[in-house]
Amino acid sequence: MSWAARGFPLEEYRGRVARAQAAMEDAGLDALLLTGEADVRYFSGFLTRFWESPTRPWFLVVPAGGDPVAVIPSIGASLMAQTWIEDIRSWRSPDLEDDGVSLLAEALREVAGANARVGLPMGAESSLRMPLADFKRLEAVLSPVTLVGDAGIMRALRIRKSPAEVDKIRTACRIADRAFDRVREIAGEGARLDEVARRFQMLCLEEGADWVPYLACPCGPGGYSDVISPADGHVFSPGDVLMLDTGLVRDGYFCDFDRNYSIGAPSPEVQAAHRQLLEAVDAAMEIARPGVTAADLFHAMDRIVTGGQGGSDTGRLGHGLGMQLTEWPSLIPQDHTSIEAGMVLTLEPGIEVGMGKILVHEENIVIGDHGAEFLSSPAAPDILCLEARP
Amino acid sequence: MSWAARGFPLEEYRGRVARAQAAMEDAGLDALLLTGEADVRYFSGFLTRFWESPTRPWFLVVPAGGDPVAVIPSIGASLMAQTWIEDIRSWRSPDLEDDGVSLLAEALREVAGANARVGLPMGAESSLRMPLADFKRLEAVLSPVTLVGDAGIMRALRIRKSPAEVDKIRTACRIADRAFDRVREIAGEGARLDEVARRFQMLCLEEGADWVPYLACPCGPGGYSDVISPADGHVFSPGDVLMLDTGLVRDGYFCDFDRNYSIGAPSPEVQAAHRQLLEAVDAAMEIARPGVTAADLFHAMDRIVTGGQGGSDTGRLGHGLGMQLTEWPSLIPQDHTSIEAGMVLTLEPGIEVGMGKILVHEENIVIGDHGAEFLSSPAAPDILCLEARP
Repeated sequence: MSWAARGFPLEEYRGRVARAQAAMEDAGLDALLLTGEADVRYFSGFLTRFWESPTRPWFLVVPAGGDPVAVIPSIGASLMAQTWIEDIRSWRSPDLEDDGVSLLAEALREVAGANARVGLPMGAESSLRMPLADFKRLEAVLSPVTLVGDAGIMRALRIRKSPAEVDKIRTACRIADRAFDRVREIAGEGARLDEVARRFQMLCLEEGADWVPYLACPCGPGGYSDVISPADGHVFSPGDVLMLDTGLVRDGYFCDFDRNYSIGAPSPEVQAAHRQLLEAVDAAMEIARPGVTAADLFHAMDRIVTGGQGGSDTGRLGHGLGMQLTEWPSLIPQDHTSIEAGMVLTLEPGIEVGMGKILVHEENIVIGDHGAEFLSSPAAPDILCLEARP
Repeated sequence: MSWAARGFPLEEYRGRVARAQAAMEDAGLDALLLTGEADVRYFSGFLTRFWESPTRPWFLVVPAGGDPVAVIPSIGASLMAQTWIEDIRSWRSPDLEDDGVSLLAEALREVAGANARVGLPMGAESSLRMPLADFKRLEAVLSPVTLVGDAGIMRALRIRKSPAEVDKIRTACRIADRAFDRVREIAGEGARLDEVARRFQMLCLEEGADWVPYLACPCGPGGYSDVISPADGHVFSPGDVLMLDTGLVRDGYFCDFDRNYSIGAPSPEVQAAHRQLLEAVDAAMEIARPGVTAADLFHAMDRIVTGGQGGSDTGRLGHGLGMQLTEWPSLIPQDHTSIEAGMVLTLEPGIEVGMGKILVHEENIVIGDHGAEFLSSPAAPDILCLEARP
């Protein structure tokens, strides 16, 4: 992908703002106040890894009419000026007395009115990225302006991806595909797990990832005990099952899928379990289209991996993804979100292969008008095998 | 560093808890409630990249007496059981009705009492990592238990690093030192910035980084316009100045320093500016010891880079670091935090080199009883030069 293909055309951002403003009108909101990386970037295109620093708050105000207003630390003003956002108000942060609160309050009153209702994401999978004491102070100085929930607007907007967003996720998936295809170069009997983790991230970068925010790599004989462990000094021996699960980023969008590898020939149990996981993915793909629910996708997979017992402790069999590693909805029995065209999802069935041992497989898909399409290149039913280190 | 040297001995965690409990007694708090990655890990040792997923909240309760209690999604129970934490309460998350709130409320009432004051970090550089609506619900169901600020306890504990923590940061710095030493292998005239960014992260990994959460790499003729830009498709030509600023992680601890490179010979202005930055670092090192303040360190550098004008829009000339890329204190005129032995700081002076162009240099240091020691291998006064690509 060339550099020129990065970012989005202006119409993409204007469309997002217009949809947000229509929803604000329905919800009786005068503005949205956004503090999180993905929400701020969704409307502005402001892309930086500087959010890794927890020191400074960043604010974007999306009024019910007109363009968004950025209220940000001056360290980011130059980069924000390269986006389409024109109204950029900045202060020298960190300011121990008033870290943007007064400036934000002023901007909110100006664009939303003195009696406004301002919506913030407050629901599932959200969090407020500013000090809680400053939020309470903001509430106090803004009164009678009230800070309320965003009526699910950010979720409703971001849960469906535009074609341009889907392209970015597809690109990220292809990069991971190529990295997974090269795992034989770095892993095999006698290799060390932490070294393999390091080398796999290098493969992701070499194949085109901008950065690699997520990698899990559990490994154990005949299966692993969890799916979130970082790498340790484990040395691979025959019969081990290694899982590599990566969330790499390209141009601000994630992929999130995994591959399982058997060191040497797999046991019949491991082989059967892996095939069942792929069957479960197929079962979900068969029904995945607009109109089914997140719960339907869960049950399609759960029938195969547990015989319909309702899941396991990993809690869900897939989820949305996009600007974040994981997003709404959740493929769980309780989530009745209607699946719509443009949703990008992981299908992530897990299966027990003995006492305290599991295998988890994951693919990425996008929902179209009449069915679903893989964004990751789907794995074969037989588990991949790694031999002695090259 | 061998795998065996990872983590901390149990006494390290017990000491942290004991210090927290002494401070809680002074502050009249019955428990601390922690929701952020670094705070949870500080007491538990729970290390995973899974926090990249914003879906699930995680809670650690540190009571005024006794051991911490983890209230966490079941997906993490197996990994938490490998830490020293014994009281682990988990639920199947995400739960759309009650994502841990009831379980947390019950644990808080049990360990802190029915009329407890529970402290949370609410001040500068903190944020609450759970949905705001769930926090409000927690406040409601807990009443008359009250959720208040943590009286600065987490800041006071984490701002001073133990010798074992300093060792981890030193290890991270040495890894970055080695990566910076190899930049000539990947960058020079004709190279592309985004490719160099990718290759530099690969060098960090090859030299021992577990992962690379932060890299900024601004580049421009005779200087750059900001310090937080991600890489773009810029092709290096003679006279460009490249800055690589990395926050890589080893065993859960960051380094955070940068190096500047001139493509071909630097202009006299760039060379002079770089030397001034190194002078500024030396001036801060000369006075850095217990008893001076963060502001004193600021002024020592500011005198050299602006002639004492009080700083620039980047906002500060250094900061703490450790489990996070940036931590308290801030080297700014308003921060009168007393510098103490065990603090790990960046010295990060910036200087203007023409209209809208800056150079920023950064080193990492640790404060000892009688002075400071470099953790990064300090750069030479002359800016490094890169030639035609090898």
